[in-house]
Amino acid sequence: MDVDRLKKQMSFILEMDKSKQVFRQTYLSNASRKENDAEHSWHLALMCALMSEYANEPIDVAKTMTMVLIHDVIEIDAGDTYAYDEAGNTTKRDREVKAADRIFSLLPEDQGRWFRSLWDEFEAAETPEAKFALALDKIQPVLLNDATDGRAWEEHGVRVSQILSRNRKTPEGSEELWEYTKGLIEKNVALGKIQDDREK
Amino acid sequence: MDVDRLKKQMSFILEMDKSKQVFRQTYLSNASRKENDAEHSWHLALMCALMSEYANEPIDVAKTMTMVLIHDVIEIDAGDTYAYDEAGNTTKRDREVKAADRIFSLLPEDQGRWFRSLWDEFEAAETPEAKFALALDKIQPVLLNDATDGRAWEEHGVRVSQILSRNRKTPEGSEELWEYTKGLIEKNVALGKIQDDREK
Ligand SMILES: [Ca+2]
Repeated sequence: MDVDRLKKQMSFILEMDKSKQVFRQTYLSNASRKENDAEHSWHLALMCALMSEYANEPIDVAKTMTMVLIHDVIEIDAGDTYAYDEAGNTTKRDREVKAADRIFSLLPEDQGRWFRSLWDEFEAAETPEAKFALALDKIQPVLLNDATDGRAWEEHGVRVSQILSRNRKTPEGSEELWEYTKGLIEKNVALGKIQDDREK
Repeated sequence: MDVDRLKKQMSFILEMDKSKQVFRQTYLSNASRKENDAEHSWHLALMCALMSEYANEPIDVAKTMTMVLIHDVIEIDAGDTYAYDEAGNTTKRDREVKAADRIFSLLPEDQGRWFRSLWDEFEAAETPEAKFALALDKIQPVLLNDATDGRAWEEHGVRVSQILSRNRKTPEGSEELWEYTKGLIEKNVALGKIQDDREK
């Protein structure tokens, strides 16, 4: 056995533990507290296992699961940038690339390249797997926000145009899941939880 | 699209959110708080992706990842039973089977049967995938306990005979990962973090 290889893998696994302390803006479904990246990624992987039948194009489920499991680990260094934080989003890409350089290089070289390429693929959002992973990443917070009667949306005064713009690629991953999600968004617009800034 | 099917899947996904509130006895690596089931399962899935090369027998990685993602969801109803809680462990199996009956029946029938069979397979610990999943489930808390200088072990006055007995099946999943883990256990025995109750 290559002891150096195993040690690198174990260091990476321990470093990943920090994902449990990167908090997002979304509340858990009972609104008791905000969700962290590890929980969010677990939730997406489960959705991946159960909902690949709704992907627009056939996907490699194992690959997509691995992609969602690691899509946010760069936030250990870069932090979570709230979707509607415009200032934060201008520096996000740079911070995240720097984080990816450090974090994936903790792994043995072959596995570091593998995880980095999965993360790059997710970010590029061009393959069927990346499009589906991205769709899940956008849909899951809508499910939780709806379950909490729109708490995070209300707190941030989110406008429907922001949500729709953030979800412009969601239908490329799954038309069917997007239809369902759009229903939840419109319900929350009607309830006044999401601000309606569209022209009438 | 089968709307009833999608609704069942979405209800299940929302119900799963409760895993984020089932806390284990293990502390995060920085000892700031205890770990919950969703985080723990995410961590195991990541280990699965990176460490399948150490499985004693070849494993289906995607299947094992799905298995670890769901292995603890029955604790939404049954609660986490601490490994060294003898009273709790006498009723554990009954509570967990009842929980599995309810939780997996939230899914469309085919997916409910699939997840139930994965959970049953994990519990039976007989296939290469289940043995490896079980090994990861036992090894991951040792990594975290070691990272926190044995905090959970000290708090519970855990004896080495308990840890070794709990890990009696770990080598069946991975001799190599067990060797590494045994090293961490012995280090913590030497440091007095784990009580040494073996005959000299
Ligand atoms: Ca358990």
